[in-house]
Amino acid sequence: MIAEILATGDEIRTGALVDSNSAHIAEALERCGVAVKRHQCVGDDLADLVPVIEEISRRADVAVVTGGLGPTVDDRSAEAAAQAGNVPLTPDTRALEDIRRFFEERGRPNSPSNQKQAMLPQGSDVLYNPVGTAPGFGIKIHRCTFFFLPGVPFEMKRMLADQVLPRIEKMQRGKRRYHLLRTLSSFGLPESMVGEKVDGVTREFPQITLGLRAKFPEIQVKLYLSTSDEPAGQALLSEAARWVADRLGDHIFSCEGRPMAEEVGRLLTARKATLAVAESCTGGLIGHWLTNSPGSSHYFNLSAVTYHNQAKNDVLGVQEQTLIDHGAVSEETARQMAQGARRAGRSTYAVATTGIAGPDGGTEEKPVGTVCIAVATPQQTLSHRLRFNFGKRLMNKRMFAMAALNMLRLELQKPEDTIS
Amino acid sequence: MIAEILATGDEIRTGALVDSNSAHIAEALERCGVAVKRHQCVGDDLADLVPVIEEISRRADVAVVTGGLGPTVDDRSAEAAAQAGNVPLTPDTRALEDIRRFFEERGRPNSPSNQKQAMLPQGSDVLYNPVGTAPGFGIKIHRCTFFFLPGVPFEMKRMLADQVLPRIEKMQRGKRRYHLLRTLSSFGLPESMVGEKVDGVTREFPQITLGLRAKFPEIQVKLYLSTSDEPAGQALLSEAARWVADRLGDHIFSCEGRPMAEEVGRLLTARKATLAVAESCTGGLIGHWLTNSPGSSHYFNLSAVTYHNQAKNDVLGVQEQTLIDHGAVSEETARQMAQGARRAGRSTYAVATTGIAGPDGGTEEKPVGTVCIAVATPQQTLSHRLRFNFGKRLMNKRMFAMAALNMLRLELQKPEDTIS
Repeated sequence: MIAEILATGDEIRTGALVDSNSAHIAEALERCGVAVKRHQCVGDDLADLVPVIEEISRRADVAVVTGGLGPTVDDRSAEAAAQAGNVPLTPDTRALEDIRRFFEERGRPNSPSNQKQAMLPQGSDVLYNPVGTAPGFGIKIHRCTFFFLPGVPFEMKRMLADQVLPRIEKMQRGKRRYHLLRTLSSFGLPESMVGEKVDGVTREFPQITLGLRAKFPEIQVKLYLSTSDEPAGQALLSEAARWVADRLGDHIFSCEGRPMAEEVGRLLTARKATLAVAESCTGGLIGHWLTNSPGSSHYFNLSAVTYHNQAKNDVLGVQEQTLIDHGAVSEETARQMAQGARRAGRSTYAVATTGIAGPDGGTEEKPVGTVCIAVATPQQTLSHRLRFNFGKRLMNKRMFAMAALNMLRLELQKPEDTIS
Repeated sequence: MIAEILATGDEIRTGALVDSNSAHIAEALERCGVAVKRHQCVGDDLADLVPVIEEISRRADVAVVTGGLGPTVDDRSAEAAAQAGNVPLTPDTRALEDIRRFFEERGRPNSPSNQKQAMLPQGSDVLYNPVGTAPGFGIKIHRCTFFFLPGVPFEMKRMLADQVLPRIEKMQRGKRRYHLLRTLSSFGLPESMVGEKVDGVTREFPQITLGLRAKFPEIQVKLYLSTSDEPAGQALLSEAARWVADRLGDHIFSCEGRPMAEEVGRLLTARKATLAVAESCTGGLIGHWLTNSPGSSHYFNLSAVTYHNQAKNDVLGVQEQTLIDHGAVSEETARQMAQGARRAGRSTYAVATTGIAGPDGGTEEKPVGTVCIAVATPQQTLSHRLRFNFGKRLMNKRMFAMAALNMLRLELQKPEDTIS
């Protein structure tokens, strides 16, 4: 079964927006055993949309189209599908009712432009939208079954998983292959070095394909396997994942594709410990990452984002003399920040960052990209001074935050009774 | 002049990698006045590559192709171009020499597979690679001038800017058109309502095209104009932007596409004021957003992310009795958090958030999505209780953080002497 993907919209066409939907859909389709042959993107113009839908309708068995289902005049996907399929647009009663209820529940007025969203190509298989106002639809044109979905990523993902993938699995009837994937997340080695350490995996396990993906600042090792026997495939992937984990040792922080902050939360929970954070250069990013995990309130007590030196002194008790003698960006300051956060947050552990994210503020001795991180445990305080520079403030912040969480992770991974 | 973009490679085709190159290229071409009609992606298979190159060669005037120029067997772009253009591959002497020197300078062995990279379609315009081993090339096939570039983003970007864009500008010889764009950022109205309020802009200014983009949780209004007279076009866009800003009033927070946190920083700087933040449910996100702007250390003093109630009391002085009587998620707590942050951060203003991001922790009285925000000024403390629920923790956090910054922005936008 051959699949194609079409992203629509002037924002993607002109490059104002990077299309991440198509990669998500491609990955999902490949996992269902459908080969994705081509992705395309065109703008909101009917004169471009109709011909591309017609082309796909003669080349592919299944296609997923995103975008252009919104309430505004530049949302033309339903109209384009109707023209390509040579059917009229008709209002769908249940979609109209869904839209009415969506606005009623939110106490917002239902507008005529939203009702336009319920105008769908006649005879289409309506895909109701549980999380937004734009319904999607399925429609067969020539040899191809099209699924039209909204462009808003979380609406698209939900409808793809709940409504489109089950329909595609049904279309495959027993001819199904499983495209399995295992993701290992590493931190601390450049991509080329990760590649050199693990590329032997395809000699050891010839059925497996290796992919490396830089998801800054982590490097993910992806193991792909296409098989008709799912349990045997999963067992083989587990064996290959252990092989990779052995090669990369401590650099692997998750064998399940979990984010670093979630992994730290898991380790804290396992030892019934709590955490406080003191942030300067990371500006709140560590707290933000930690609190993206549901349940983080069980172990995360406090992050003191002490951007101003006075706040480092007032809130964390960093000594003025330390700031004068060593500067805000120093291991001494980082250590006092971690100790102060541990005290102020009444926590088992604390981690602290202080550094220069740039673009300005660097000196010869402490250039942009310098960061000092410290971890305070019940037994001791550890610190490091590191230097990165990715030329972008946000990238430096991300690298600083990951380095700090990673230092804490390595400490938490030690068996409890060996901690000095 | 019509352009198309083609990304090649199995990693993009299967969704293992998000293609951000095409958006970068589209934006660069549009800025040069070239209309991008279509992006595509196919894998590494010659049977897919050759036909897609042929299709483009009959439809577009110029095309940029990325990927498939590396040293391995699955890098087939040069071969595909040669087949589509019906010419043989021949070695390029200077490219061979560049590759030899690249390895010599890095003390790495030069392998035969790298020499394959110097095999280019006969008669092509070689684009030497100053930062890697893969040379690119230009080749005319039918009506279209193709530029083949490496897929590694930093190599692609450098070669596009230095070698491809100047060639495209030369091809346009005076026929250049300017594709202008103005972005207005709004917050607080749903997309459909924004659309209804502003869609009259295209009646008032028929040359302008309107686009709406939901960049959650903001809604951007985009005004596009294609013209050969740049100054007149900019003046018209300014007039249209004023028209839109009048319709949306206070909901517009930037007419230059600036993020909310940067806008708040601009307003603080204008009145030489400083800011402290107290965050509970936003977990550090407000601090993170504020510190993404270079120079934020001039006005941002502190964010106290007091996730645990004890920390609200210890660090911000929220009274235990308030937490008992009203709960952590209450306007009373938010007000004391803001006042405490203003004091602890020795700041002119403070903003505070406390709420329930979900998925758990909601009650009948305070369901998931409830947030209380407060702003403390030198004169008074204001507070609101709001309710959102986007079904996703991260989306709720973003909405809470934006609502809090927006409340502060509206306060900062009042003329200084009218603040009560």
